[in-house]
Amino acid sequence: MKSMIDALQWRYATKAFDASKKLTTEQIDLLLEAVRLSPSSFGLQPWKIIVVTNSEVREKLRQAGYGQAQFTDASHVIIFASKRELSDLDVDEFIGLTARERGIPTSELGEYAGMMKQFLSGLSGEKRIEWASRQAYLGLGVLLATAAHEEIDACPMEGFDPSAFDEILGLKEKGLTACVVATVGFRSEKDQTAQLSKVRFSKKEIIEEIQ
Amino acid sequence: MKSMIDALQWRYATKAFDASKKLTTEQIDLLLEAVRLSPSSFGLQPWKIIVVTNSEVREKLRQAGYGQAQFTDASHVIIFASKRELSDLDVDEFIGLTARERGIPTSELGEYAGMMKQFLSGLSGEKRIEWASRQAYLGLGVLLATAAHEEIDACPMEGFDPSAFDEILGLKEKGLTACVVATVGFRSEKDQTAQLSKVRFSKKEIIEEIQ
Repeated sequence: MKSMIDALQWRYATKAFDASKKLTTEQIDLLLEAVRLSPSSFGLQPWKIIVVTNSEVREKLRQAGYGQAQFTDASHVIIFASKRELSDLDVDEFIGLTARERGIPTSELGEYAGMMKQFLSGLSGEKRIEWASRQAYLGLGVLLATAAHEEIDACPMEGFDPSAFDEILGLKEKGLTACVVATVGFRSEKDQTAQLSKVRFSKKEIIEEIQ
Repeated sequence: MKSMIDALQWRYATKAFDASKKLTTEQIDLLLEAVRLSPSSFGLQPWKIIVVTNSEVREKLRQAGYGQAQFTDASHVIIFASKRELSDLDVDEFIGLTARERGIPTSELGEYAGMMKQFLSGLSGEKRIEWASRQAYLGLGVLLATAAHEEIDACPMEGFDPSAFDEILGLKEKGLTACVVATVGFRSEKDQTAQLSKVRFSKKEIIEEIQ
């Protein structure tokens, strides 16, 4: 792939995947590593990623996803799940990790921890899930850009029943809720949407420069 | 840059920019084109992008951004603004664009338009802004991945007073609200955060596979 612009021009929200084609282990590992490395506010990574290849589970996801074929036909279904109740415990876990990775005592990170805890305590429960969900969309953006760069097809998907997904995947018990999905794999030759022109507002319409 | 993984390993949330170094026109154009091409739900692009280089405006943004130096020292400040009141008019504008780009009559897009309008009407005003904001974070993810690939430094920023930003940039009158910011440019040699290890949960901790 020559450039990121070429990559982003090449990609489209794949409607029909070729169910016979699967990503190699290297390809799926690369996508997941990109998500793992994705930035998030404070670096807090308030998410878990569920990767489904099991066909029975995928059939259930499809039923809870308005019957959309990508849930069963893509190579992998990647679900971004947001933490339902971000708390001081999550901050402490992250601070512990930071101390280990950087070889410094947690006591040196007290101010940073305090800032994060103060931020979270200022958000209502609902706002906190929403904040975590925004971070998941950031991770989704990184995933989609990476997939395009690697010439891996992808479809970002919001059209599903989150409660049903939580039930199927056992997310609620884990303090998680399904936020957004990317199905990834290879486009079917029969996918007519691949032939359609990309529709974007012009630079003039969406970008304002204050010089 | 060898790979997207190398690029994502290389990037970090730049705390200190070298104020003497500016992106070339080609570099900033590439970043903005990546955002313009970014996916969004339905392809609706419910955002505007404000790019600020004016130093007086940037000084005000810094004051409304807890004094953070990136607002004045980065090469460019890129603000993602979400539409405050997404309505049927936005859908109609997008449908008109789609019809022009694809050379088909708008009447053929009636079902698609109806689906989008039904979706939006099912969201409260606040939920609609939130939905638009999630899309902006997706665009931010694409921007940050692209910047990393091009070895352009960036700092994603949530720490600012959105009302003050709206006032400074005249966003409210345009039906917009400041959502999230990326400052872009070149790291200062003095930025000590560049030397710190990246802190990420392990694959085992954040990725679950259902096979």
